[in-house]
Amino acid sequence: MLKVIVMDRDALEVYLLEQIPLARAMELRVDLASPGELTLSAPLEPNINHQGTVFGGSASAVAILSAWLLGTARVWEADLPGRAVIQRNTMRYDRPITGRFTATARAEDGEEAWRRALDALERGRKGRIRIVSVLACDGSPVGELQGDFVLLP
Amino acid sequence: MLKVIVMDRDALEVYLLEQIPLARAMELRVDLASPGELTLSAPLEPNINHQGTVFGGSASAVAILSAWLLGTARVWEADLPGRAVIQRNTMRYDRPITGRFTATARAEDGEEAWRRALDALERGRKGRIRIVSVLACDGSPVGELQGDFVLLP
Repeated sequence: MLKVIVMDRDALEVYLLEQIPLARAMELRVDLASPGELTLSAPLEPNINHQGTVFGGSASAVAILSAWLLGTARVWEADLPGRAVIQRNTMRYDRPITGRFTATARAEDGEEAWRRALDALERGRKGRIRIVSVLACDGSPVGELQGDFVLLP
Repeated sequence: MLKVIVMDRDALEVYLLEQIPLARAMELRVDLASPGELTLSAPLEPNINHQGTVFGGSASAVAILSAWLLGTARVWEADLPGRAVIQRNTMRYDRPITGRFTATARAEDGEEAWRRALDALERGRKGRIRIVSVLACDGSPVGELQGDFVLLP
């Protein structure tokens, strides 16, 4: 059912920065985009807090955007009318983030979860998927988001 | 133990906008600051998404900041050395946010919870507190954050 094409990093970055002004304010980049995994990155400076580390709300927003952009790209790739919408999330802040950081999103249950969610969407129903995004800095994990998304027809 | 003084809305707003560049990008305002409750607000435009409603990451960041600023202000008000740090949160997105919105933070268990957390801080230990922030737009609730914070000596 899915068209297995590699996602276009440049096109996704242009889309993200055009559609979401806060993504511009956070100076987001799309580092990697594939059907299974999408990585965003952001520098410290526009996302800094009073302690000189990354503000939790920025960390959370970058993780949410990585998960949402992966969901959006999967809907496009499947060539289905629909969109990804976040319903709820949990976020863990494990360590202070002291520099440029990344958020890497993937479905918690892998390709099988995408198949179920996109199949539902194809039948004109809501698809549901949990996307996990791991935050990392200097090669070490520093936090994690679990986001529950619906794919709306 | 607590000095019961009313918190200064203007001073908190200046502090927030000076310390957190993303708060400026989101055009945050402090609408109300009291020991029991703190309300931030933000306009739609800088926080908009591809659907013309508020981006979930902005909603989440505003809710986190309302909770963090309340925790910070309570530590200051108690005249204790220490600071509020977020450890984890859950966030529910109940409805699309279509215009200017508010985030109102308070301790889940009220004054008793502040007393416990600030007493621990006064004894040089970590205080723990859960702060809930309700998002509202046009007078209706649209989402909710539960944030677990530590007050660090």
